Amino acid sequence: MSTNREIHLASRPQGWPTADNFRLVETEVPTPGPGQLVVRNRFISVDPYMRGRMNDVKSYLPPFALDAPLDGGAVGEVMTSEADGFAPGDTVLHGLGWREYALVDAKAARQVDPNLAPLSAYLGVLGMTGLTAYAGLLDVAAMKPGETVFVSGAAGAVGSMVGQIAKLRGAARVVGSAGSPGKVERLRSLGFDAAFDYHDGPVRDALRTAAPDGVDVYFDNVGGEHLEAAIGAMNPHGRAAICGMIAQYNATEPPAAPRNLALLIGKRLTLRGFLVGDHGHLREQFVQETAGWLRAGKIAYDETVVNGIEHAPAAFLGMLRGENLGKMLVRL
Amino acid sequence: MSTNREIHLASRPQGWPTADNFRLVETEVPTPGPGQLVVRNRFISVDPYMRGRMNDVKSYLPPFALDAPLDGGAVGEVMTSEADGFAPGDTVLHGLGWREYALVDAKAARQVDPNLAPLSAYLGVLGMTGLTAYAGLLDVAAMKPGETVFVSGAAGAVGSMVGQIAKLRGAARVVGSAGSPGKVERLRSLGFDAAFDYHDGPVRDALRTAAPDGVDVYFDNVGGEHLEAAIGAMNPHGRAAICGMIAQYNATEPPAAPRNLALLIGKRLTLRGFLVGDHGHLREQFVQETAGWLRAGKIAYDETVVNGIEHAPAAFLGMLRGENLGKMLVRL
Repeated sequence: MSTNREIHLASRPQGWPTADNFRLVETEVPTPGPGQLVVRNRFISVDPYMRGRMNDVKSYLPPFALDAPLDGGAVGEVMTSEADGFAPGDTVLHGLGWREYALVDAKAARQVDPNLAPLSAYLGVLGMTGLTAYAGLLDVAAMKPGETVFVSGAAGAVGSMVGQIAKLRGAARVVGSAGSPGKVERLRSLGFDAAFDYHDGPVRDALRTAAPDGVDVYFDNVGGEHLEAAIGAMNPHGRAAICGMIAQYNATEPPAAPRNLALLIGKRLTLRGFLVGDHGHLREQFVQETAGWLRAGKIAYDETVVNGIEHAPAAFLGMLRGENLGKMLVRL
Repeated sequence: MSTNREIHLASRPQGWPTADNFRLVETEVPTPGPGQLVVRNRFISVDPYMRGRMNDVKSYLPPFALDAPLDGGAVGEVMTSEADGFAPGDTVLHGLGWREYALVDAKAARQVDPNLAPLSAYLGVLGMTGLTAYAGLLDVAAMKPGETVFVSGAAGAVGSMVGQIAKLRGAARVVGSAGSPGKVERLRSLGFDAAFDYHDGPVRDALRTAAPDGVDVYFDNVGGEHLEAAIGAMNPHGRAAICGMIAQYNATEPPAAPRNLALLIGKRLTLRGFLVGDHGHLREQFVQETAGWLRAGKIAYDETVVNGIEHAPAAFLGMLRGENLGKMLVRL
């Protein structure tokens, strides 16, 4: 029997996580019971929301257990199957990442076609991050053609999709913020009308220059100063889809901003938090529309790929520090 | 010709306004031109939103001009008319309060029936404050039967209506906060299931006790600590209608709270600011439903009445300090 390797949560991070919070553990490759599959993972996803699950607090998902494997989006090949409709060689998407071999309930696995798109796309542009962008922009924030859209963390997996979908759906102007000159350059090449590096000065000032006529839709991946600046820049009846607040996931003190929430009243603004899991009804429409854009070469997507399960913690930590361009993935 | 008296804005308040910011000015009673009325005001309204208009900042309404009369909701009797459809003795609702005699464009006046309800009701329970409560609760926050509702500033003109409408529309539990033991007692007599004095300790703790199963709808009149506590207490898919933030209208420093906005994501919360002016399409429905409740004795409303235009500034300042129970009015 060959060996399986997986990443356990060794201890709960206080503030920024470190490599010490993770442990590489060797186990045996599992054997499927009735209705189960064993999947050899090929790509696993590391995402910002996972940071929250490392805390021992009640939230929309239970916290990760200590001394047990982490989980998250993964795509891989069925090795053995005890479930109808799945055979060795099938490619499936499921939720048990952070390990080389996963024992998956067939009900929690979804067949994907490896000939339609690269495997990694099912974790990104055609997967959870793509649907997050699509649902947040079009459903939660209800963007209309002709509007101005601001996206924070715009060079990330979600943000870069938000900006491109906004343009494809008729936004008049799309503005993105990112954390390095190279990312800002990339946003311009992706078709953003304006982009800025939030290290260069107050977000408020940069946003005023980038969106002189104000912002109608704000897609928030960052929180804090970005959210405050967006509220300040928003036009009457503006909507913010609150997807993430990565600026504060590792904070040990509560954030000071935004301090301008009273503007919600006079400007009739809406701030709406969302989780992609509530928007599964859009999946079919999203996949069809996005696959069409991909075939037509209208959407580009970046991936930052790290090789080997043993480097998954480093990939996760790098993603939190913004070292990725586009989707951060681990190839196994 | 008799004399008119009106209140001018003498200077812009810095922080809390004082009597010195206002000036009582004697003028002549105006004469109507074509399409105009002269109205002898009987009741004028003083409302929290007026504080914002005393600042020289761009907002949804222009700032009050210095050395000119303030304005706001008023109800009175037509003295002279040069407009079709209006005759001396008619009772009208209009927007030129803070003065004894108003020169009103007929287009900006609305006939009301003085036999259907007391005149003052057209400024409160059947007027702008009533519609604010109705639209905010049922339209903006989309309260559903069986939900738990929390209202801050609940003994005020808007808040007391929110709580009662919530119960009449099937809320399972209605909780209110107020600023004195007497107000808390009044909320209980109005049918609130729980009420607390926010001076007694952290709002968060009081709210946890008052709404042990969480809050589905929060109607915000206060902002700051109240909003933070509400976000903390809200159940998944909770909605906040942001009507006012009286806690910070006189602040000279930006407020620090709320620091827990990241909860918007996991709990999928919506914060939505609104102005009653956007909800005029509900006016007919609101008046019909509320008049029915009034006739049936199902809604009670409090008024705090100050007599004489010369005391309008004191009435306004007292309202900002929370000295009113229910609607603060000036009778002329």
